[in-house]
Amino acid sequence: MSYRYLENKELTQAITEYTTRLDLEEKVLEEEELLLQDALDRITSRGVMAHISAPHYYACAMDGIAVRSKETFGATDTTPVHLMLGEGYEPVDTGDPLPDGMDAVVMIEDVVYEKEGVATLRSAAHPWQHIRQIGEDICQEEMILPSNMKITPAAIGAMLAGGIGKVWVYRRPVVGLIPTGDEIVPPKADPQRGEIIEFNSSIFSSMIRLWGGETVVYDIIPDDLEKIKAGLVRAAQECDIVILNAGSSAGREDFASRAIDETGTVFTHGLAIKPGKPTILGKVGDKPAVGVPGYPVSGIVVMEQVVKPLVESLLKIPLPKANGLKAVLSRRVMSSLKYREFVRMKVGKVGSRYISTPLDRGAGVVTSFVKADGLLDIPINTEGLEAGAEVDIQLLRSREEIDNTVMVNGSHDPLIDTAYDLLRKKDHRLYVSSSHVGSMGGIMAVKRNETHLAGVHLLDEATGEYNVPFLKRYLSDVDLVRIHGVKRSQGLMVAKGNPLGIGGLEDVVGKELSYVNRQKGSGTRILLDYLLKQKGLDGESVYGYDREELTHLSVAVQIASGSADAGLGIYSAAKVYGLDFIPICWETYDFILREEYLKDEKVLRFLEILRSDAFAKALEELGGYESEGIGTMEQIKEETT
Amino acid sequence: MSYRYLENKELTQAITEYTTRLDLEEKVLEEEELLLQDALDRITSRGVMAHISAPHYYACAMDGIAVRSKETFGATDTTPVHLMLGEGYEPVDTGDPLPDGMDAVVMIEDVVYEKEGVATLRSAAHPWQHIRQIGEDICQEEMILPSNMKITPAAIGAMLAGGIGKVWVYRRPVVGLIPTGDEIVPPKADPQRGEIIEFNSSIFSSMIRLWGGETVVYDIIPDDLEKIKAGLVRAAQECDIVILNAGSSAGREDFASRAIDETGTVFTHGLAIKPGKPTILGKVGDKPAVGVPGYPVSGIVVMEQVVKPLVESLLKIPLPKANGLKAVLSRRVMSSLKYREFVRMKVGKVGSRYISTPLDRGAGVVTSFVKADGLLDIPINTEGLEAGAEVDIQLLRSREEIDNTVMVNGSHDPLIDTAYDLLRKKDHRLYVSSSHVGSMGGIMAVKRNETHLAGVHLLDEATGEYNVPFLKRYLSDVDLVRIHGVKRSQGLMVAKGNPLGIGGLEDVVGKELSYVNRQKGSGTRILLDYLLKQKGLDGESVYGYDREELTHLSVAVQIASGSADAGLGIYSAAKVYGLDFIPICWETYDFILREEYLKDEKVLRFLEILRSDAFAKALEELGGYESEGIGTMEQIKEETT
Repeated sequence: MSYRYLENKELTQAITEYTTRLDLEEKVLEEEELLLQDALDRITSRGVMAHISAPHYYACAMDGIAVRSKETFGATDTTPVHLMLGEGYEPVDTGDPLPDGMDAVVMIEDVVYEKEGVATLRSAAHPWQHIRQIGEDICQEEMILPSNMKITPAAIGAMLAGGIGKVWVYRRPVVGLIPTGDEIVPPKADPQRGEIIEFNSSIFSSMIRLWGGETVVYDIIPDDLEKIKAGLVRAAQECDIVILNAGSSAGREDFASRAIDETGTVFTHGLAIKPGKPTILGKVGDKPAVGVPGYPVSGIVVMEQVVKPLVESLLKIPLPKANGLKAVLSRRVMSSLKYREFVRMKVGKVGSRYISTPLDRGAGVVTSFVKADGLLDIPINTEGLEAGAEVDIQLLRSREEIDNTVMVNGSHDPLIDTAYDLLRKKDHRLYVSSSHVGSMGGIMAVKRNETHLAGVHLLDEATGEYNVPFLKRYLSDVDLVRIHGVKRSQGLMVAKGNPLGIGGLEDVVGKELSYVNRQKGSGTRILLDYLLKQKGLDGESVYGYDREELTHLSVAVQIASGSADAGLGIYSAAKVYGLDFIPICWETYDFILREEYLKDEKVLRFLEILRSDAFAKALEELGGYESEGIGTMEQIKEETT
Repeated sequence: MSYRYLENKELTQAITEYTTRLDLEEKVLEEEELLLQDALDRITSRGVMAHISAPHYYACAMDGIAVRSKETFGATDTTPVHLMLGEGYEPVDTGDPLPDGMDAVVMIEDVVYEKEGVATLRSAAHPWQHIRQIGEDICQEEMILPSNMKITPAAIGAMLAGGIGKVWVYRRPVVGLIPTGDEIVPPKADPQRGEIIEFNSSIFSSMIRLWGGETVVYDIIPDDLEKIKAGLVRAAQECDIVILNAGSSAGREDFASRAIDETGTVFTHGLAIKPGKPTILGKVGDKPAVGVPGYPVSGIVVMEQVVKPLVESLLKIPLPKANGLKAVLSRRVMSSLKYREFVRMKVGKVGSRYISTPLDRGAGVVTSFVKADGLLDIPINTEGLEAGAEVDIQLLRSREEIDNTVMVNGSHDPLIDTAYDLLRKKDHRLYVSSSHVGSMGGIMAVKRNETHLAGVHLLDEATGEYNVPFLKRYLSDVDLVRIHGVKRSQGLMVAKGNPLGIGGLEDVVGKELSYVNRQKGSGTRILLDYLLKQKGLDGESVYGYDREELTHLSVAVQIASGSADAGLGIYSAAKVYGLDFIPICWETYDFILREEYLKDEKVLRFLEILRSDAFAKALEELGGYESEGIGTMEQIKEETT
């Protein structure tokens, strides 16, 4: 084996060395000749020269008469020139070929017909006036496109005008994808315990298609060295680039590097990037063979950072780069000195500022790439970036989309997704970005002006009143508006049929049952603590009090799976999983916002959705809500208490 | 007829009224259910909820052993806990399902095996440590995508992880394209005089495909009202949007508006935009029917400005907007007060500035859209923009492409295209932009720092020396470098076989033959004037002296077509069209540049191409060049003369 330890090689250097070693820049794929209608977005493999000139004949550029300019010389008001039809002039329209022997066109409005067949001119025509010269657009043999250019709609038009019907292009580069892993199964609706659905190859092949490549996705190979080696050799024969996707079991053995080493060469194993560190750069035969980590988030980053440049080299065009956007960090982003890190970020425009917040960094969380608006590229030897720092975000969405996004941070409720779906149906220009940071998180986001709206349901222990006491306490310096939301039913979610016969909160304390809690700062956590205190109960005596989930749905799902017996949450979440529900109280879930955002068209559109009949109907289907008065506004005045 | 005169309606207002009248925002296309692998880039027609949670089982997140956390409580260095295989622990790998009854994973490095089958722990395990909770990525019934969202690679992964195999999407909107015009013929290699190749529908349908629509291109309909009406009715039945493309003969009749009026309704005829003024907004049946002008440049602008918003309404997503770039105008751009104008622009980065120059505004010149780097959108009621003004360019290429473009303004020579093609083959990151502004234009572009390189061949009448006297005269304040180019053979191009027996310049003066000249400021024009003067001849006595073409090729093509008998030009241009060539002299064609650009990597790469063997070989094939010493550099020192 040519290597032993995992390296930590700098990314750019690794890619440069790799493409140089493989001589990828010099490598040219086979050509094919395509009809122009099939050639959109393909890459020219030869310079394209016009076969004919365009226009290919002298074309009249005006409606009027064609004349011999010499015969009009000297024409003035006092010495007009008279021309005879068929001898001295011919009537012509725009686009008509210039009649033989003529060399000028006189516009119809400058011609006087004193009698039929006799045209009178009162000024001379310049030679070649109002005539489109041959080759005005393109001359025969002029280059329309050089080699290695993407064929655009306008280029197709120019080639057709130049008498070209077919064009030589490179065939598309073919990337072979080999998924591996004992635990990996093809996509299905009902995977068993221990079966992990193989979706990486679908993500990767979609990326490659968007870049202009083709893919061959091979059958999943189990963790068997000889089978993986055979798969590599076959793929290297059939494809231009081979991707060996390791199973997400980084466990007992990692066959990928051994397999590449034993069928070809491993140049580098280990890049100084995060995620994506265990990447392998090698070759099998004369084809690049890249070992891509199994976690989807790592995989996507490695595809973008490592595989894309390889595809570009074969395509012979640079692929579009992400647009950059300057944004302010809403909180500190830690980074390791040893690695260049690619952090998935949420980005929103609040007021005049773009605010960016890191998403969960779990490498297994594929939805984080669905939620991400951009990437933050943190260089090596950086400890992290402070809250408030201005950073460059590489956008994964368009800036217009971000500008048109309503930010809703705060407490989680499924009704936000429901409202989002209705908003998209109503106005396809608008988007919603929601972050589940709990009610207190929402209040803080409003305070720091990092969100348009926040969902809050906070019970004041002293007064038993919802929300307003908190708003007065924390947001007294803000011109604040409360949007009346819903009353929703909070209670204990328990397994279907309530097998443990749980009657109320008393039954989860000190009992042999397992509770699942919400995170600190969430309204439901605060409610639990309040309820426990009211009953003189102690959180510490609840088994599972420290087991925290971020949403009602994720609490419910733990109960549905049988790993927990009870958890406080809302009725609609229990209903989704067919859980039993022991109602405890109705609580008030409101939206709050700074008054200034009532001038923001997109925020108003979101509020309209809340007030709509369609939304009321959807709430009824979700269950456990009362929505009377939803959407009414109330200004929260500052008080000096 | 509901209209009579051409209106001049403001664009945005016209579009808003039009989509409102047609209720396009509310219009929903039929759904279809697609396999995920076929759904990339399609638009969801319903919100997509996860069918299963991901992970769908409790998965070990580390290699090690699974335990019951309760049984580890109290473990310390002094009071270790011993667990028995099969009872107290199970060995697990990352991704394995958590064994029944267990609720924590201890990492392999924290386990000591005192004897086989007995694991010793020296610290307690927290409940649920190193376990991926069910739904950590996605909870069952959680919304993965709302309605009306484009399906990205990551979304495909998330849906597969959520147990989804198929997704409901809208069918693609179908745009019907009806080309019309007596003079229009389908694309072919050998159109006859008076036949105009119909390439608009190929351009338009390519644009629509890039937007995510489908197209039906109908057969060309001649200028026959009844046939056009029948075509409209059929297309309105078969498509979602109908484009009626008028023939470029704006001549005798314009059937488009009558045809729409008589089969449906014309809402607006005439927009306050240029190009694109004669646009028609109407409907046939309940389908939008748009009359798009026949000139390709007008047509592309109308497709982008008018048809694209209609397609967006049906797609239910906003399509990407062009990126903006701030650039400095290199010269004045005139504009009409009455119209909003869309001007095609060249953009280049010279030093730290982006410079933008308007392209030829001829509406028939489709190649101008191939050459254009961006559009300048000049509002209505603007007289024009001054040279030096900072303007916002809507880019048609990526900024990286513009940053990597070598600008070569100045005298035309086919060798520039040849060098460009070789450069693209050598380095697919680099581009060349050349403008044929003549030798003096090139000198001025260098003086104003608007180009990297300029091609010049200027004969000094006083000394008979090429280029250097001009450089000293006009560029004495610039640190200038001359790159020795080629010697090229200038002479008279005449028809094959030289039927008029032209022997030299003397023969084109005062004779009954027709000359075709180059534009003022071009080196060849200056050469002609010098040669005439030397022989005591007079330009005014040359018939056709005022007929100006911008390139050697376009001079040659006029002679090849028989509309001119002679023109001064270079041998390689005559060779392209098989013309006879009467050599007159060898002249020096050099490149000049500011010394600072010798530090610019892309400029150096271009100069390397000039020095390459491949280029020498290509020059030989072009013919009429001597390239000894090409690429050698010489500093032009200031002199106080």
